[in-house]
Amino acid sequence: MTTATKIKNDRILKALRCEATDRPPVWMMRQAGRYLPEYQAIRKQFSFLDLCKNPPKAAEVSVQPYEILGVDAIIMFSDILVPLEPMGSAVSFATGSPKFADPIRTPEQVDALKALDASELETSCSFVYETITEIKSRVKDEVPVLGFAGAPWTLASYMIEGGGSKDFAAIKTLSYQNPHAMHQLLQKLSDTIADYLILKLKHGADAVQLFDTWASMMTQEDYQEFALPYQQKIIAKIREKYPEASITLYVNGVANILDYMLQSGANCLSVDWRVNLAEVRSFVADRNIAIQGNFDPCKLLGTKQSVIDETKRMLELAGNEPGYIANLGHGILPMVPVENARAFIETIQANS
Amino acid sequence: MTTATKIKNDRILKALRCEATDRPPVWMMRQAGRYLPEYQAIRKQFSFLDLCKNPPKAAEVSVQPYEILGVDAIIMFSDILVPLEPMGSAVSFATGSPKFADPIRTPEQVDALKALDASELETSCSFVYETITEIKSRVKDEVPVLGFAGAPWTLASYMIEGGGSKDFAAIKTLSYQNPHAMHQLLQKLSDTIADYLILKLKHGADAVQLFDTWASMMTQEDYQEFALPYQQKIIAKIREKYPEASITLYVNGVANILDYMLQSGANCLSVDWRVNLAEVRSFVADRNIAIQGNFDPCKLLGTKQSVIDETKRMLELAGNEPGYIANLGHGILPMVPVENARAFIETIQANS
Repeated sequence: MTTATKIKNDRILKALRCEATDRPPVWMMRQAGRYLPEYQAIRKQFSFLDLCKNPPKAAEVSVQPYEILGVDAIIMFSDILVPLEPMGSAVSFATGSPKFADPIRTPEQVDALKALDASELETSCSFVYETITEIKSRVKDEVPVLGFAGAPWTLASYMIEGGGSKDFAAIKTLSYQNPHAMHQLLQKLSDTIADYLILKLKHGADAVQLFDTWASMMTQEDYQEFALPYQQKIIAKIREKYPEASITLYVNGVANILDYMLQSGANCLSVDWRVNLAEVRSFVADRNIAIQGNFDPCKLLGTKQSVIDETKRMLELAGNEPGYIANLGHGILPMVPVENARAFIETIQANS
Repeated sequence: MTTATKIKNDRILKALRCEATDRPPVWMMRQAGRYLPEYQAIRKQFSFLDLCKNPPKAAEVSVQPYEILGVDAIIMFSDILVPLEPMGSAVSFATGSPKFADPIRTPEQVDALKALDASELETSCSFVYETITEIKSRVKDEVPVLGFAGAPWTLASYMIEGGGSKDFAAIKTLSYQNPHAMHQLLQKLSDTIADYLILKLKHGADAVQLFDTWASMMTQEDYQEFALPYQQKIIAKIREKYPEASITLYVNGVANILDYMLQSGANCLSVDWRVNLAEVRSFVADRNIAIQGNFDPCKLLGTKQSVIDETKRMLELAGNEPGYIANLGHGILPMVPVENARAFIETIQANS
């Protein structure tokens, strides 16, 4: 985003603008991850958070899927929960899953959290921005680098539930018992995340993705009250600073909220496998909105031939109109065989 | 189902047939459960499975929500995993969640499972049918008694994953690597479950509900391959024996599969809170299909006033056409205050 430098492999940047490309660009959510032995080799030297906070090593694992699998974009290695620690809500990954020692449950705890401005973020999350710089210095202008952040509802769900959740009972309890406190929390997150992403663009990210992974777990009315307005605020604030910024919005489970996702201001919607890709593409046709997705990550656990067949099927449903980025519908799973990930990527790259 | 006896409170039976009622009938999925102190008092004397296998006590907890909250239907206390033990796949609830000591992962394990016919079920699951008889003898012809079962995909997910799952990676791995073995398993489950439900009707259940809770977690194509055909087989087999049987199909996350649920042969679709109830009702209008749902169980964790307001909102969306049964969109949670469950029920009962 920083420069007018032309990126050599600009397929994804074009697709995000709904411009024609020779073939669909492809990358995989969570592509710098445990399914790669090369990632595991580095990961075993560091805790997960220490790896996030080590720019040279974080850059190294970010670049791995590009070097090993030839994806069309590098997404920086990090975690959506990283900016919460300097806000006052520390998370640990010691057990493999995120865990908050002090889940946010009361208005007093919400009050105590600190929204961070750009200068505070540039200090407390300096490692994030250094990682981008480091990736850029490794890959030069070969391929785009993507930044990302969690959206307020999804971040709040981890902070309030204390980690992952099955039913989101704690965040909904706060939302329905004390909507005022909930909105305060979402506003603090929204202020922080907007600047967090602006700084990623400033430091060299070529595009960004906002993950509102769990926003689909509530009613459509609640989505409009607790998720959409904060997505809109973040996207609008980024566009004030970078009018041309490409912003992708991801939700896991979009079937009932595509209409509202369109209102977010994002220029690309990243969708899961439970929707018909052809229907989604036709839903956004003529709106200049790109679609990203939507391979079921579990399909990578089938046979190599089933991966090839299902990838071709996805491409057929995506059709040939510009504005399509091949990807998974959720992060790649640790037990995926690398050869299956490669079959997915290569089937897309052979499609022209 | 056994008799032509007129049930005094027949609201739900009428609504299931899309006939007019004075007000919408209401019950709550998992209504015989831990949110009730009266249930807990009995539950602490028995393990979960021992309570399922004790007809007088199972009948007692089944009747509690009718006596305490005045719901319009009694659903028998049991668990969808109960018929799997005599098939050869034993489950334990010792930790509070279902856990299979030997998850099904290979074709050999599928081969070893036994599909049960009616006479085997009547012996091995006698306690299930005795519970229905016991409930009937307690409530006479006052109120309908509902039976239920898990659908093949959902039962298979527990058997293969070994319990609950976040990503359903194990069942999908088997499905994509060895679809033949998967279909064998689903067929055995389907044969067993059809007879299991037929016997519930024979022993006095006035209607049944088929839970395919997790069938929404796959692609639409997979739903049509792995879920729909087995729902259809079960429902068709029941209707061969009991042409007038009322069969409700529940899935948690119906937004992308309503079309296919309609093809199941069920006369009532039980839907979750992430769809717009007015849209769903208008989707099935003129098809003689009833709709059940769709209150977010987490909404019962709000204030009493928020429960009342949201219940009224649900009723407005449901509209006044016949064929609507008020219910939750998933099972009631253990931490729900009884007074909030009562506010939900009473708000519906006041609506005429």
